[in-house]
Amino acid sequence: MSEIIVMKELLGENKRIAEENREIYRKDHVLMVNIMGAPGAGKTTLLKAVCAELKERGIASSVIEGDLYSSIDADDFNAKGVKASQINTCGECHLDAAVIKSGYDSLDFKNGICFIENVGNLICPAEFDLGEELRIVCASVPEGDDKPFKYVPMFSYVDAVVLTKCDLKEAVGFDSANFKRGMDAVNDAPVFETALGKNVSGTDSGIKALTCYILERYAK
Amino acid sequence: MSEIIVMKELLGENKRIAEENREIYRKDHVLMVNIMGAPGAGKTTLLKAVCAELKERGIASSVIEGDLYSSIDADDFNAKGVKASQINTCGECHLDAAVIKSGYDSLDFKNGICFIENVGNLICPAEFDLGEELRIVCASVPEGDDKPFKYVPMFSYVDAVVLTKCDLKEAVGFDSANFKRGMDAVNDAPVFETALGKNVSGTDSGIKALTCYILERYAK
Repeated sequence: MSEIIVMKELLGENKRIAEENREIYRKDHVLMVNIMGAPGAGKTTLLKAVCAELKERGIASSVIEGDLYSSIDADDFNAKGVKASQINTCGECHLDAAVIKSGYDSLDFKNGICFIENVGNLICPAEFDLGEELRIVCASVPEGDDKPFKYVPMFSYVDAVVLTKCDLKEAVGFDSANFKRGMDAVNDAPVFETALGKNVSGTDSGIKALTCYILERYAK
Repeated sequence: MSEIIVMKELLGENKRIAEENREIYRKDHVLMVNIMGAPGAGKTTLLKAVCAELKERGIASSVIEGDLYSSIDADDFNAKGVKASQINTCGECHLDAAVIKSGYDSLDFKNGICFIENVGNLICPAEFDLGEELRIVCASVPEGDDKPFKYVPMFSYVDAVVLTKCDLKEAVGFDSANFKRGMDAVNDAPVFETALGKNVSGTDSGIKALTCYILERYAK
């Protein structure tokens, strides 16, 4: 019982800070995009590709990296010239609006698109509004085609889905029709398919389509 | 502050029930094995293979299935003749000792090996003792070779690691040496490699080795 009360208080306080965040992003002309997904779903690889695509189009981007421990990903972004700040949750399973507030402050970023790479977790992050305008979940093909059926809160929470590692569909026997059935049952969000593996060459049309989708939201 | 106190109380109560569970399993001559891992890591596929291997050796097995929603996996086990009970957490990100107690009661199982398939989550389940004797994490090759560095609590919590989908190592450019570095940094647990994909044929030596490892613990 007391757990439920504390959780409600926590979520209420989180919501209040999220609304403050949203107001700041609006004033700064920043589109905040929350990228969620299971561990190893391909969030970092996706973000690198989208940031590169945005750069080609002259749009500034930055990243707030959430991880339990380590700064592997933020270091990598900074090395590639994308402004990134690292948040270590020290074991916490999600990011909340307060930690994003401090991560955003340390970025010193305006007029562009800022991505939050959430902690690798297909459950808990769907409970915490961070003040973002756009919510995207990455689901990778090797995770299986039944995920929308099993992780309903996340797949119904998001504005868009990115199905990553599509080059592995045949290798793992991914049933696209079953995935679509699961999606149709919970959400009418668009699904973008990408294949950015180390062994894939050429331009990825899914990344271009996703970038256009994000830019449409940025223009609003 | 209040969140921390409630969490401590919760974990204390969980620990108390876990110890009761442990005592019951001992009396029932059941080895309880907690299988954890990210969504789509291959927990269900692994369990099916291990249960089949145990059956060949004349050892009874059963499964307690944890999922946010749906009974896809438990139905599947029951159809294959393995006693299974389904726990739906309705959005909760982990199983706790109390729900396992009721799941175990409904199984009506003695003298064998019982597996808990935890909720797909590489973070939260590592905080909840369920009364199990053996803790195993499944990490799949497509999740990437950096996972032990990033999900330290889980990889240091377990007795053994199963690296699944090893047939995809080349396709995704998995760096085995980096995975080993990560493991060496956090735990000296054994690592079993398996490849049970739909396109893989033949007997899997990793499953045999893992089954022997589990049986050694059962014999104690």
